[in-house]
Amino acid sequence: MKPEAAALSAFMTAERREFHRHAESAFTEFWTASRIAGFLAREGYEVRIGREIMNPEYRMGVPDEEVLESCYRRALDEGADPAIAERMRGGFTAVAGILRNGPGPVLGFRFDMDAVDVQESGDADHLPRKLGFASLHEGVMHACGHDAHVATGLALARLLASDRDAWRGTVKLVFQPAEEGVRGARSIAESGFLDDVDYMIAGHVGIVPDGTRTFYGRVSGFLSTTKLDLHFTGRAAHAGVNPELGRSAILAAAATALQIQGIPRHSGGASRINIGRISGGTGRNVIPEHAFLALETRGQTSEINEFMASEATRIAEGVGQAYGVRVRIEKMGEASDARSDPELARIAAACALEAGYERAVEEPLPLGGSEDFSFLMNRVEARGGKALFVVLGTELADAHHSPRFDIREEDLPLGALTFALLAGRLSAGEASGR
Amino acid sequence: MKPEAAALSAFMTAERREFHRHAESAFTEFWTASRIAGFLAREGYEVRIGREIMNPEYRMGVPDEEVLESCYRRALDEGADPAIAERMRGGFTAVAGILRNGPGPVLGFRFDMDAVDVQESGDADHLPRKLGFASLHEGVMHACGHDAHVATGLALARLLASDRDAWRGTVKLVFQPAEEGVRGARSIAESGFLDDVDYMIAGHVGIVPDGTRTFYGRVSGFLSTTKLDLHFTGRAAHAGVNPELGRSAILAAAATALQIQGIPRHSGGASRINIGRISGGTGRNVIPEHAFLALETRGQTSEINEFMASEATRIAEGVGQAYGVRVRIEKMGEASDARSDPELARIAAACALEAGYERAVEEPLPLGGSEDFSFLMNRVEARGGKALFVVLGTELADAHHSPRFDIREEDLPLGALTFALLAGRLSAGEASGR
Amino acid sequence: MKPEAAALSAFMTAERREFHRHAESAFTEFWTASRIAGFLAREGYEVRIGREIMNPEYRMGVPDEEVLESCYRRALDEGADPAIAERMRGGFTAVAGILRNGPGPVLGFRFDMDAVDVQESGDADHLPRKLGFASLHEGVMHACGHDAHVATGLALARLLASDRDAWRGTVKLVFQPAEEGVRGARSIAESGFLDDVDYMIAGHVGIVPDGTRTFYGRVSGFLSTTKLDLHFTGRAAHAGVNPELGRSAILAAAATALQIQGIPRHSGGASRINIGRISGGTGRNVIPEHAFLALETRGQTSEINEFMASEATRIAEGVGQAYGVRVRIEKMGEASDARSDPELARIAAACALEAGYERAVEEPLPLGGSEDFSFLMNRVEARGGKALFVVLGTELADAHHSPRFDIREEDLPLGALTFALLAGRLSAGEASGR
Amino acid sequence: MKPEAAALSAFMTAERREFHRHAESAFTEFWTASRIAGFLAREGYEVRIGREIMNPEYRMGVPDEEVLESCYRRALDEGADPAIAERMRGGFTAVAGILRNGPGPVLGFRFDMDAVDVQESGDADHLPRKLGFASLHEGVMHACGHDAHVATGLALARLLASDRDAWRGTVKLVFQPAEEGVRGARSIAESGFLDDVDYMIAGHVGIVPDGTRTFYGRVSGFLSTTKLDLHFTGRAAHAGVNPELGRSAILAAAATALQIQGIPRHSGGASRINIGRISGGTGRNVIPEHAFLALETRGQTSEINEFMASEATRIAEGVGQAYGVRVRIEKMGEASDARSDPELARIAAACALEAGYERAVEEPLPLGGSEDFSFLMNRVEARGGKALFVVLGTELADAHHSPRFDIREEDLPLGALTFALLAGRLSAGEASGR
Repeated sequence: MKPEAAALSAFMTAERREFHRHAESAFTEFWTASRIAGFLAREGYEVRIGREIMNPEYRMGVPDEEVLESCYRRALDEGADPAIAERMRGGFTAVAGILRNGPGPVLGFRFDMDAVDVQESGDADHLPRKLGFASLHEGVMHACGHDAHVATGLALARLLASDRDAWRGTVKLVFQPAEEGVRGARSIAESGFLDDVDYMIAGHVGIVPDGTRTFYGRVSGFLSTTKLDLHFTGRAAHAGVNPELGRSAILAAAATALQIQGIPRHSGGASRINIGRISGGTGRNVIPEHAFLALETRGQTSEINEFMASEATRIAEGVGQAYGVRVRIEKMGEASDARSDPELARIAAACALEAGYERAVEEPLPLGGSEDFSFLMNRVEARGGKALFVVLGTELADAHHSPRFDIREEDLPLGALTFALLAGRLSAGEASGR
Repeated sequence: MKPEAAALSAFMTAERREFHRHAESAFTEFWTASRIAGFLAREGYEVRIGREIMNPEYRMGVPDEEVLESCYRRALDEGADPAIAERMRGGFTAVAGILRNGPGPVLGFRFDMDAVDVQESGDADHLPRKLGFASLHEGVMHACGHDAHVATGLALARLLASDRDAWRGTVKLVFQPAEEGVRGARSIAESGFLDDVDYMIAGHVGIVPDGTRTFYGRVSGFLSTTKLDLHFTGRAAHAGVNPELGRSAILAAAATALQIQGIPRHSGGASRINIGRISGGTGRNVIPEHAFLALETRGQTSEINEFMASEATRIAEGVGQAYGVRVRIEKMGEASDARSDPELARIAAACALEAGYERAVEEPLPLGGSEDFSFLMNRVEARGGKALFVVLGTELADAHHSPRFDIREEDLPLGALTFALLAGRLSAGEASGR
Repeated sequence: MKPEAAALSAFMTAERREFHRHAESAFTEFWTASRIAGFLAREGYEVRIGREIMNPEYRMGVPDEEVLESCYRRALDEGADPAIAERMRGGFTAVAGILRNGPGPVLGFRFDMDAVDVQESGDADHLPRKLGFASLHEGVMHACGHDAHVATGLALARLLASDRDAWRGTVKLVFQPAEEGVRGARSIAESGFLDDVDYMIAGHVGIVPDGTRTFYGRVSGFLSTTKLDLHFTGRAAHAGVNPELGRSAILAAAATALQIQGIPRHSGGASRINIGRISGGTGRNVIPEHAFLALETRGQTSEINEFMASEATRIAEGVGQAYGVRVRIEKMGEASDARSDPELARIAAACALEAGYERAVEEPLPLGGSEDFSFLMNRVEARGGKALFVVLGTELADAHHSPRFDIREEDLPLGALTFALLAGRLSAGEASGR
Repeated sequence: MKPEAAALSAFMTAERREFHRHAESAFTEFWTASRIAGFLAREGYEVRIGREIMNPEYRMGVPDEEVLESCYRRALDEGADPAIAERMRGGFTAVAGILRNGPGPVLGFRFDMDAVDVQESGDADHLPRKLGFASLHEGVMHACGHDAHVATGLALARLLASDRDAWRGTVKLVFQPAEEGVRGARSIAESGFLDDVDYMIAGHVGIVPDGTRTFYGRVSGFLSTTKLDLHFTGRAAHAGVNPELGRSAILAAAATALQIQGIPRHSGGASRINIGRISGGTGRNVIPEHAFLALETRGQTSEINEFMASEATRIAEGVGQAYGVRVRIEKMGEASDARSDPELARIAAACALEAGYERAVEEPLPLGGSEDFSFLMNRVEARGGKALFVVLGTELADAHHSPRFDIREEDLPLGALTFALLAGRLSAGEASGR
């Protein structure tokens, strides 16, 4: 390893571990985002925070005010810069850095910052535990690798800032909150901050579980998805004394679950439906007044997903009427379908090999899941830009979202270097422009 | 047996067999009612027919025009008097006879005439088969004893007409169509024909299966009931090619069935629900456009039944909305709750013993079923009259509505004589009047 | 008020407040029961504790070991006598006192001790809050008046011990855990401790919400009930990636809820069914592995309740099979039907008037709910004894189980005096013996 | 048109009309098959009938004996040759003709013969009505074009028999019953009759609704499918009197329908489910003893369809247990997935153009439906042969299975000629052999 490579690796590993320790879930990334903002400023980037790059009307699934405040306090307790964090209060935790380097295209990179609601493993041989950088926060863990994404973003920021000859134009590095549950990207898209971007790029570590250092340059087949919370409010009554006065919210929720599960298949392509969570009721002898369902729909295309979501909505409302139970439907997250640009994929694959990946795949990799980066891709493409989503293959200790998830830290520099090289080639006009 | 008694028995047996042979189901009793009308006229009664004593707006569950016409033709073919039958065309088959006998109270008696949709047994030892008076009509049979009721009505008509010294006042003998499915009484009640009645009486043979000659003078606890037909109309589509275009009427009907079955118990008393029939769909590979449910609700009180029926209605509409399927709800029958007057019951029990019953019970007998005579009882009582429903115990060959149902014909005179004696006592002012 | 009456009132009020402050829920009444045991011993009673009067096989719905231990520690921290509490460890919190007073009948009285899982009101005008004796324990409150029952038991103990001329024979005062959820009585019944009792008596404060000092001497119509917990275990899978590999425990629970709600009505009398609580699932995009239903069945007779409970069990198992989901069914509570002895009721009513009640009702009061005292009644009656359940009418600040529930403390002595008088009359042979 | 072409057209039109008039549904093609058998014999073919080429164990969805007999009588009445028809009695209506023409490959062609359960349009401008060849049989109509297939088969038989220089080897022309409902092919496959076939070919008229004379040489993407009938048997009871004694077969069927509709999507490809028909119950006041569901599953692969069908089976059994209702599951039809051989498709396309089609498409045409010819394709391929399914494009008067379905008769010769040319080329060794 060359000295710069070794330094880069050490830097990224250290940063990744810091972020891992301070795992913060969606819209509460106060510590994480404050640290990023400070770093970007020190590296010479113009820094944008919170409402400057987030349209408040398009945030989804934001935690309660109480949770936001308590996480905010925690971030301050753990050393977040109060002047910066203050600007994120209320869950406006997006951060971006802008670096201008003469004329040339505008390059956008997105890195997601949020952790998952998973309790990190206490096993002695779980590396973050063994080396002492396991999550400080009960029930929250970087079990999807976004800590690595943030480290990659910081490394890219430093690489671009420190070698201005290697590229030209303008770069916008966006650190996004709340990718889990596909809740945060849309408010960034709708802020217009990325409307001048020519090439919009993001990546994800891991995903393909073969453990090799393979770069997948062309992720496609994001499933469009909608996350819905259904709140049922019936009428309580004593189940022994006056059953006829009650309106069971549980029965309404149960019937809704069964009927939503039965939404017809769509001839236009794959669809999905899942009732992920149910709850309701209080005492065993009380006809339950409240019940709750958390569900998601998916579709191979946005049209199919829209079919699924609107069927689910109509079913919930009709079943509510059938049971005399009020239903409130809340959209908690959303992602559209998207596909990567093949030309960018080809160039990126070349950069990846140059950066040190063992293998670089240009063929489409169907994601089979959802990512709200799709909103940023679609926004940029709608204005004539191009977009790319890649997978940074590495070895995983366990599956994504598992309590024992971990990545191979030695591979961290590969992604950052690939992105830096890509910035160079794209700014040199290698891809056909807008 | 005294000679008059022997003659009465012979007359009733012969008549009962004639009606048994010509079994006609609800609203198609053209042959039966024509014969009754002719008889009443010959005995000196003023005869009222069809719309004269039926309010057309309150008939329920009337067969299709085609069925009515074909049964009408059949009745003519079988010898019904065309001039009389003509006045019943379209299913207006109620008949009444009025006999005036000086001042005194108005006495009403009701006899129901319709047969059941049951295929009569072909067993050689089934008496009506053996003696050659089994039903001529495929799938229609007097399996509930209404043939005996009609014979009782004719016998009572003759007894009252032939011995005017035994009673005074006015008697109204009503022969009602469509008691099965509780569809016919309400239109008679709503015609106002019985609004001047002081004492309204009816009875049913059999019911209590102990085979003894016991008279139950005070039937109570009629369950209030509503009969509903639900018609679902969705949208057909090829189940393989375009499943997302269909709206399955079967699924809507199925979900409605399950949810209606789950209507809560009522703390005010017994309730019942039954989905008696379901149908729907055409080809196996076609998303079904049509489906149908036939159901009934019951309640110990009319309020409870109303609760059941209105819940069922709301559920059907809500589930229809949930599935995007139109729902049409048709009321096919209805009976209210009612209870017999204890004073009349006491007097009737005395008459029954005098008439020859072995035992006469004055305690309330809970019916546990429904009878639309309740509409006539409630109508008369609402205007200050009194009402009574009795059971004429006899031996049954098999359960009501069974293909092998039969009664003990020797017991037929007991009921007619009891009613004639009761007319005497009531017209003599034995009961407290209105 | 006479001096003794004033002293009794002061004693009962003080005790009731102590128990109210230390509200403990089912099977965790370590502080409460220890205090009772100490008191009984001091008053000269033979004391029986825990397993001595509880058959371990018949406890139902016992909390987890962890909860039991933590409540046990809490009781010690709050001053429970360690030597006594030790004998209750693991949730064996029943206590009984025996007092022998020469030959004569054996009289049993039962008092229930457990509080409800309700968070006590913080309103300033809520008396326990205002006077500083609100529950010390988060989410646990004497919202059903069992604190008053315990105070009544102690007062009765003192009255009987201090005036041995007023009665003869043997008295057994049983303080029962876990009446809420009808979980505790059966293990006492099955221990055999009450098998020699001639007259078994218990009462409940409040119930009838008219606020008068009325004694209801003959509570009947306890509904038989069964409390079931259903645990569903399916198979998790990623809802987007491999939906066909999952087995949704939520769908199984939902279908079970709907089908159980549809268990047919019973012609033998009233029945009830309620799904009181549902929960299941983890992440929105994970096919849920676990789900849970808490339900109860009731029946006017034990046979009807048994029908309901066995239908519910069969449905859960069948639906589990349908979804390929394992179902574990746990009985969490149970009470049988029972009715009070009319002769005891008449005598008790006379005692109540003598004790100072404004009114005493001898007619049956249908409870319309369930009480596991029924197990003790049935046990005693099966061996030739008689049993009585009474209501001690008083004014309530709010409904039972409400956070603002409170009783009129001035009425406390009425119940204790009534029971003491009743002990006198019964031991004098006023009722027909066994 | 050349004279021979004109003669062929006249022959085929006349034959098609005869078969159209005598439309016979699945397994009752006695008239149709007898006529074919006679024709083949006259043209010099060895004729095989019924059990000779059908394995009785693999017929599915065979009508009742009574229906079979009545259709058999009808066929005789309409002039079927008794000696031939006799051999088909009981629904063994397959016919095949074998023609040997020296050494060379064995060529198999399949033609399906059955009509659809559709009532033919009475519209005056519906051509079969106008020209007097509308179906003689109430509710049965050649609404899918199998009459054209049969005419094509006869024409091919004549073309091959009359010009033996144009081809060599052996030809087996199979006329299959019961393609509708995919019920008949499997029993032919399992008879082994086609095990020596090198090239197995079939086609379907219409399908693509653009009205052009286009030949699609390579139909693929047959959905695998299973047709299931579910018979539920509960226990009847009077819904008012003894609801607790009943076991509602309707509720079991309804719950099964809802749950089967909710079988999870499969990540491996498209799946389908449809409840096509439901029925159940008798009287409105009787808890229904019997109910019935007709359903179908489909899958893009046989594995996916097998997943769907086995889930459906398990659900039905589990729900039956839940309701205490017996469930009998009967497989009524089945087809596997299959795809056409590309090399045969290329050759066939060339023949089609030569025969006179305007356009011939070699790209795969996804069928999106099911065809039990797939069983013959898979059988032949499993033994090293090749198989092809083609679409013979023509103009349709209305959609397949519509009462106004009709084809453009002028196009009939195109298919027959294409097949004859194909027989020539394949027997000349143009395709790579087995």
